[in-house]
Amino acid sequence: MENQDKTCHNLTRRQMMIGATGVLAAGTALTQFGGLLKSAHAVGGPTEKWPWSYEKLDPAKTAEIAYEEWYRVFCGAAVINSVFSQLRAKVGEPYTSFPVDSFVFLEGGMVGWGMTCGSNAGAAIVANLIIGPRIAGGTEGHQISEDIFQWYSEASMPIFVPKTPKVTTKLVRTTAESPLCHVSVGKWMKASGYPIGSAERKDRCARVAASVAFHLVELLNDWKDGKYKHAATHKPVKEYGITAQMNCMECHGNDVPTPPMAKK
Amino acid sequence: MENQDKTCHNLTRRQMMIGATGVLAAGTALTQFGGLLKSAHAVGGPTEKWPWSYEKLDPAKTAEIAYEEWYRVFCGAAVINSVFSQLRAKVGEPYTSFPVDSFVFLEGGMVGWGMTCGSNAGAAIVANLIIGPRIAGGTEGHQISEDIFQWYSEASMPIFVPKTPKVTTKLVRTTAESPLCHVSVGKWMKASGYPIGSAERKDRCARVAASVAFHLVELLNDWKDGKYKHAATHKPVKEYGITAQMNCMECHGNDVPTPPMAKK
Repeated sequence: MENQDKTCHNLTRRQMMIGATGVLAAGTALTQFGGLLKSAHAVGGPTEKWPWSYEKLDPAKTAEIAYEEWYRVFCGAAVINSVFSQLRAKVGEPYTSFPVDSFVFLEGGMVGWGMTCGSNAGAAIVANLIIGPRIAGGTEGHQISEDIFQWYSEASMPIFVPKTPKVTTKLVRTTAESPLCHVSVGKWMKASGYPIGSAERKDRCARVAASVAFHLVELLNDWKDGKYKHAATHKPVKEYGITAQMNCMECHGNDVPTPPMAKK
Repeated sequence: MENQDKTCHNLTRRQMMIGATGVLAAGTALTQFGGLLKSAHAVGGPTEKWPWSYEKLDPAKTAEIAYEEWYRVFCGAAVINSVFSQLRAKVGEPYTSFPVDSFVFLEGGMVGWGMTCGSNAGAAIVANLIIGPRIAGGTEGHQISEDIFQWYSEASMPIFVPKTPKVTTKLVRTTAESPLCHVSVGKWMKASGYPIGSAERKDRCARVAASVAFHLVELLNDWKDGKYKHAATHKPVKEYGITAQMNCMECHGNDVPTPPMAKK
């Protein structure tokens, strides 16, 4: 029921904006988010040749590594290292020279500010490091980031259960409807009753990191096999005329600001 | 006046939470956000030895590079490359091997989802790459990230005016009171009347990237000189019992969820 309500809100919001502006400002907005392909060129060193060599990984093994790594480097770096520690062994450079641990700061939605869940940010970093940025010609790194954000928002988390969990209590699962840390963590805390500093909340986040790492590797393996299909349907700038999540009303209530739209 | 109102809301919210729980759950929360120092170790290659060699840069020159780079790689990668392109020339490795362009995906608060402003994310990446993660012993990378997020939230943006602006219209300045892309961009769009796809909005964001790069280099130069002072006062997990911004009511209105708190 809650999901259905959200969907109705989304449709209402989207229809309202279409109604207010006549048509969506798709063409204009896409100038930034799809443009500048021709003028772009890599300026860095040898690591800026994409795609990086990738060998298919086992999703469950990757998730187990992410779960364990959470307790060392937290969500963002755990997701990155769950993939890169294996590719260092299988491939070597450029994975060996990538400073994974610098991304500890992604914890708590970046140094605890509750913004993008570090697991999502870590997954996007991995996809864009391996496949490259959209300005270099390949769009799948950008698309996999979108897929992960939307999949995470709609998933009942945490999905993955480690073989040897550090917390043996059964953990409730919640749907964030957002890729943001404090929304995801907050809804789980509300449903579970556990505070931020509890062992249960920490293990929940470690399992979320593991769940994201699992799905990320599924997508990367598909990409490697040439059978990756872009799944995300949320196109914020195109649909809303501003960078945004898909459910404006969840934060803004009925007082959703209307962005200035391009003139026809 | 608006700022004063926000401050009052913050105090009210904070006092409310202190009132509800008796004391803030500082100790518990800090277990995650300050703990695990002893068990941490770097697992990567030669780039995981911190700090990386740093030479002081000119803030204004760095800002000019960020402004120009925005038009090639957008906010996040522009901030990273404004610093790293200079350090590649002055220092060489490990800057040469860092794949800056992969971070194009930071655009629009990560692939257009309106989350952390890419300029903020890029600045945090630079600080944590150079200084290292807090688990490696140095805390200034983590602290400079906090400083940038708070400074950005309170700044009247865009501050920096390039020598040769691509848009010569005078651009209004707005205060985001948030490090998030869609809040920062949305308030500016509302005040200016320019849509997301306009040349003015793009130049505004290019100047925001330049402004962040300028301040980032000021902080890094202070750190290099041994005179860096941590400025940020927002301690979300400690104060709110959850990862968060400082102004819960701006999104939640009077219906701010109360997180479960640790038992005394």
